[in-house]
Amino acid sequence: MSTRIGILTGGGDCPGLNGVIRAVTLHARQTYGWEVVGIRNGFEGLYEEEYVDLNASTVQHLLPRGGTMLGSSNRANPFAYPVKLPDGRVEIHDVSTRCLANLAKLDLHGLIVVGGDGTMSFSQKFIQRGATRIVGVPKTIDNDLEATDYTVGFQTAVEIVVQAIERLHTTAESHERIMVVEVMGRYAGWIALTSALAGGAHVCLIPEIEYDPDRVLEAFHRRHGRGVSYSIVVVAEGAKQKGGGHSVITAADPTKQEKLGGAGQRIADMISAKTEYEVRTTVLGHIQRGGSPCAFDRELATRFGVKAVELVAEGKFGHVAAIEHGKLVAKPIEKAVKKLKLIDPAGELVRTAKGIGIELGG
Amino acid sequence: MSTRIGILTGGGDCPGLNGVIRAVTLHARQTYGWEVVGIRNGFEGLYEEEYVDLNASTVQHLLPRGGTMLGSSNRANPFAYPVKLPDGRVEIHDVSTRCLANLAKLDLHGLIVVGGDGTMSFSQKFIQRGATRIVGVPKTIDNDLEATDYTVGFQTAVEIVVQAIERLHTTAESHERIMVVEVMGRYAGWIALTSALAGGAHVCLIPEIEYDPDRVLEAFHRRHGRGVSYSIVVVAEGAKQKGGGHSVITAADPTKQEKLGGAGQRIADMISAKTEYEVRTTVLGHIQRGGSPCAFDRELATRFGVKAVELVAEGKFGHVAAIEHGKLVAKPIEKAVKKLKLIDPAGELVRTAKGIGIELGG
Amino acid sequence: MSTRIGILTGGGDCPGLNGVIRAVTLHARQTYGWEVVGIRNGFEGLYEEEYVDLNASTVQHLLPRGGTMLGSSNRANPFAYPVKLPDGRVEIHDVSTRCLANLAKLDLHGLIVVGGDGTMSFSQKFIQRGATRIVGVPKTIDNDLEATDYTVGFQTAVEIVVQAIERLHTTAESHERIMVVEVMGRYAGWIALTSALAGGAHVCLIPEIEYDPDRVLEAFHRRHGRGVSYSIVVVAEGAKQKGGGHSVITAADPTKQEKLGGAGQRIADMISAKTEYEVRTTVLGHIQRGGSPCAFDRELATRFGVKAVELVAEGKFGHVAAIEHGKLVAKPIEKAVKKLKLIDPAGELVRTAKGIGIELGG
Amino acid sequence: MSTRIGILTGGGDCPGLNGVIRAVTLHARQTYGWEVVGIRNGFEGLYEEEYVDLNASTVQHLLPRGGTMLGSSNRANPFAYPVKLPDGRVEIHDVSTRCLANLAKLDLHGLIVVGGDGTMSFSQKFIQRGATRIVGVPKTIDNDLEATDYTVGFQTAVEIVVQAIERLHTTAESHERIMVVEVMGRYAGWIALTSALAGGAHVCLIPEIEYDPDRVLEAFHRRHGRGVSYSIVVVAEGAKQKGGGHSVITAADPTKQEKLGGAGQRIADMISAKTEYEVRTTVLGHIQRGGSPCAFDRELATRFGVKAVELVAEGKFGHVAAIEHGKLVAKPIEKAVKKLKLIDPAGELVRTAKGIGIELGG
Repeated sequence: MSTRIGILTGGGDCPGLNGVIRAVTLHARQTYGWEVVGIRNGFEGLYEEEYVDLNASTVQHLLPRGGTMLGSSNRANPFAYPVKLPDGRVEIHDVSTRCLANLAKLDLHGLIVVGGDGTMSFSQKFIQRGATRIVGVPKTIDNDLEATDYTVGFQTAVEIVVQAIERLHTTAESHERIMVVEVMGRYAGWIALTSALAGGAHVCLIPEIEYDPDRVLEAFHRRHGRGVSYSIVVVAEGAKQKGGGHSVITAADPTKQEKLGGAGQRIADMISAKTEYEVRTTVLGHIQRGGSPCAFDRELATRFGVKAVELVAEGKFGHVAAIEHGKLVAKPIEKAVKKLKLIDPAGELVRTAKGIGIELGG
Repeated sequence: MSTRIGILTGGGDCPGLNGVIRAVTLHARQTYGWEVVGIRNGFEGLYEEEYVDLNASTVQHLLPRGGTMLGSSNRANPFAYPVKLPDGRVEIHDVSTRCLANLAKLDLHGLIVVGGDGTMSFSQKFIQRGATRIVGVPKTIDNDLEATDYTVGFQTAVEIVVQAIERLHTTAESHERIMVVEVMGRYAGWIALTSALAGGAHVCLIPEIEYDPDRVLEAFHRRHGRGVSYSIVVVAEGAKQKGGGHSVITAADPTKQEKLGGAGQRIADMISAKTEYEVRTTVLGHIQRGGSPCAFDRELATRFGVKAVELVAEGKFGHVAAIEHGKLVAKPIEKAVKKLKLIDPAGELVRTAKGIGIELGG
Repeated sequence: MSTRIGILTGGGDCPGLNGVIRAVTLHARQTYGWEVVGIRNGFEGLYEEEYVDLNASTVQHLLPRGGTMLGSSNRANPFAYPVKLPDGRVEIHDVSTRCLANLAKLDLHGLIVVGGDGTMSFSQKFIQRGATRIVGVPKTIDNDLEATDYTVGFQTAVEIVVQAIERLHTTAESHERIMVVEVMGRYAGWIALTSALAGGAHVCLIPEIEYDPDRVLEAFHRRHGRGVSYSIVVVAEGAKQKGGGHSVITAADPTKQEKLGGAGQRIADMISAKTEYEVRTTVLGHIQRGGSPCAFDRELATRFGVKAVELVAEGKFGHVAAIEHGKLVAKPIEKAVKKLKLIDPAGELVRTAKGIGIELGG
Repeated sequence: MSTRIGILTGGGDCPGLNGVIRAVTLHARQTYGWEVVGIRNGFEGLYEEEYVDLNASTVQHLLPRGGTMLGSSNRANPFAYPVKLPDGRVEIHDVSTRCLANLAKLDLHGLIVVGGDGTMSFSQKFIQRGATRIVGVPKTIDNDLEATDYTVGFQTAVEIVVQAIERLHTTAESHERIMVVEVMGRYAGWIALTSALAGGAHVCLIPEIEYDPDRVLEAFHRRHGRGVSYSIVVVAEGAKQKGGGHSVITAADPTKQEKLGGAGQRIADMISAKTEYEVRTTVLGHIQRGGSPCAFDRELATRFGVKAVELVAEGKFGHVAAIEHGKLVAKPIEKAVKKLKLIDPAGELVRTAKGIGIELGG
């Protein structure tokens, strides 16, 4: 039987996943003559044994397509998996042993796991349980993985937010309004701050810097005092008021529905309560993680996919493909999951934002 | 003194207003040698006598820019105008007489008023009070003016919504979710239904057809029954439940803030309460009315602007430039304000939507 | 056996064809329960008997995709078809009789033919030979079919050209250059003139108006005289110099290669020879007919597809779906092929262009 | 008198220049209270003493705008400057002494020069002549400056090319054609290779790797042999045939006109002469360097602008702002002009391209 590798995509989807799948498939088959097995819906497909053969024909047209052709699943934690019982009830089981058995049956030369910190930590546990032939590709639109300068999907999210901000500028100015845009980022403000810089926003609130409402209001007054009677406010969903204790508002079952009315609405309410200014709110939601990747992410996805295959070929298991200082490198998986990469409140990006007058609220 | 015309933009802004201003300016000056006076912030500028000279140089670069270089104002109702008193209090006055006096001082050969139904009805009152040399250009992203097949700004809003829907498709499918998108349209569902058709949505709820929640849920079950486990739902902000009495939720002072949590949130709550499906909500808000116009609106704005100058040149006052059956025509202003153009629940657009399986809920 | 209809796409491809295929499939199956047979590569597939079954699953994701999933073929003239002989030589045969026989074998309740004037005239001949159950959907990015106000693909081409022009504006101005953009349009200038209006071009040369080079140069001098030292020139590929006898330059075998160096290059050479101005040329080529359709074309394609199925259901064979005065109607096929719809040099569009100072050269 | 700095933009324009101007202005004024003088049209404005005051109001709306609000000029070599004599003749003079005198008159605390290798080498000569208070910001869409990982404008060019390639894919496939796209890059293939990777091209020809026509043709045959009957070919304008001696075709006076019919046309001719395949050519030209910058370049431009002001504040004259290993650093100007940064034929990017089957022709 010919050599065979596997690939799965886990966690929240993002633009560029299909580019990784395509590059892995083309490189593995054309350069090494390996077969490539796609495992559907993250680790769920490993448990359920749902596989698809990947080849040049199945990955055609895939590069510009958003989402992941393999499917993903937030629920697919193999160590706490919702198993449907014959009587219809759902129980949470540890199904990792069966996953390991299925993995052994597949007899893979290597398994490429594309995912964020959740998926990477599952991978690490599997490695500890003996499934050592795993390499990773880091992916999250939040760009908050310590292991790599850039994750696949981040730049596309920023392009989408910046286009939205650009549209808000003209209507904000025509009507002399304050426009609040809530963007993704529960723990890290990379999307918010990068978009604020690139979008010409005036206020930007991120999880890493607790904001003082008075400083935010002061920023509007300063602008109005100069005769500029509109402002754009970018708020990460995880932005927190100083001493406020406000955390991310979630529904009872957050996998079923994430309530609106989070950070963006709170800021709008505060402005509305304390000033005369008209304010309007936009919640971009999942359009930030859907659709066609920008060129930057298509290139990055392709390079990560090729690198992952190289890691398998070199036997560098237990590592993720990463980009560091502009160069593709391999990093131990535990580096990718250990801690989040947050914005440094004293770093260059924050200093640049302050340098051009963006109010960060703290 | 040379002949002079005036132009103002009123009501909510939308992509294409600057294209009208540019075309009016270029045509009036180059073809007729007229001066062009821009009146700032709708009728407010007429009251406050805020004017700007418009010429080839001031309208350069204007065609692709969103918003309106003249500014607009929702508050500028000259018949109920918020006047600031010396002691700081604000009183509502009828300032129409002073506006008429200022208009007379300007000694305009014609006044071109660009706006929606509010602005048009003010214009009609001024005409009745003797300011007869007025022509109109219809504008609203809602496309709900009886006088014209298309209004400036509508097609751009549709392009923006369709791009957002396209991004939601891939993430909805990857995660098997129901994605709810709330779009503009309080009384008319043109943006919602056109975007649903062009965006490949599966459910579309519009003000003209009260929806039965059971029919909406049935649509999801039908799709899931066929093995398609995701859906896109487009909801106009004015969508109403059958017998529900739900109206548009507004804040205490709707000009200060329009609360989130309207039609889109209600649908999401309903789905979340009655099904197992995961649901996510996006509220596009003002990105639908901001930013650069699409080519269709740039062309339409240019043709409307040239036509409006022609109406002045021909002395066809009291009319708006309109497009009817693909041709530019003049329609009496009262036609533009009399009643809203709503979607016909038995018309071709609705039949087309139903023909390809879009659930309209009623 | 269940009722069955067929669909083929012929002639040059354009954005929106897949939208027609999708709407035909969804409407025919869901509303009427008909099977839908896709015939591959235009009439070539009818000769070669290459068919594909179309259903909800095969047309999923199709709406935003450019091109045609059925393939097309410029060479597929069934009345002069390049038949490959056993010895490798190619002979031109009339294969219409075999096409008719294959069509009879398919036993279709109706055949929907999507195409431009070539495809429509083949259809008409088949009807005359007895294959009467044909209805058409007009398609051409050139928008030059007499039968309909809009053809599928046109508006997308205009959006693409306008985006290109917008990019040229800033670099033209920064460097004080004349930028020439050659766009599609051999016989009709719809793309060129609409894009010039929507893109803010300064000179526009179209096949319907032979241009006088001196008038073109005069336009540059006028602008420079006013201190504006850059210009954007849009040239349809079929633009002709007054008395010049210049026709479209074609390669020996135009199906193999269309040489560059046509109308755009000739204008650039002329400017370069007779003035001091720097000039640069862009040939947009096939990016005008590829890729994802704009929302306008997605909607139009969907409405045309549904209408075509309705025509079959009503037995209105020998007609094409068309849009006239903003309404979907049926027109006899011969109306669609009789003569091209050209721009009226005295019509509203030309007057609008001249009104805002666009030089048309004649 | 208050402290004052100056800024000029030289060489070919590109998206992002306005972002640098805006960031320099905002940071210098708000953080340091310095005045900012804009020098028009590169070094030409220094000779002609054409200045403009820059402040928060003049740089408003500037971030998304393409080109440079200061103007640029390819001819503005102060060491060989085309001086117009009273009799109308033009003579080439060294005007550097007068430039230095004018610079002294301006009494600048620092001069920020934004440009490519030409502009940087002029700056270096001025420094040698005593105008030491100069710092630079590297800019070129070609990304070929040794000093920095990324130059402002490059990523936007790639996004534009990738969008064009995406449009060509569908029409190429529908018609089974070979599509040739000529992109910028005379000496370096960064735009071509990055776009080929991100655009899913099948052949990519760059100046750094001379191509063997037989290998290119072989790539088409391989694809056709697998049943894939279309291909996308990206050609840098400086691509050279192995042993061919073909250089970039230029007009007699290349500043007046760059002839079409360069690298892209030569490849198309070669394919057309030696195969049966249909081929079409697109020359993207200056749309690659015009128009609104992508978010990546807006962010980079802002960071470079702030950094340049910091260099002035720190007295780090004779340096350029650069990005190295993802971090903003200062590099000596001579590093930026010494030699071009070319693609390494044995490097990771080329290996990645080959890994997924892109034919590089050598």
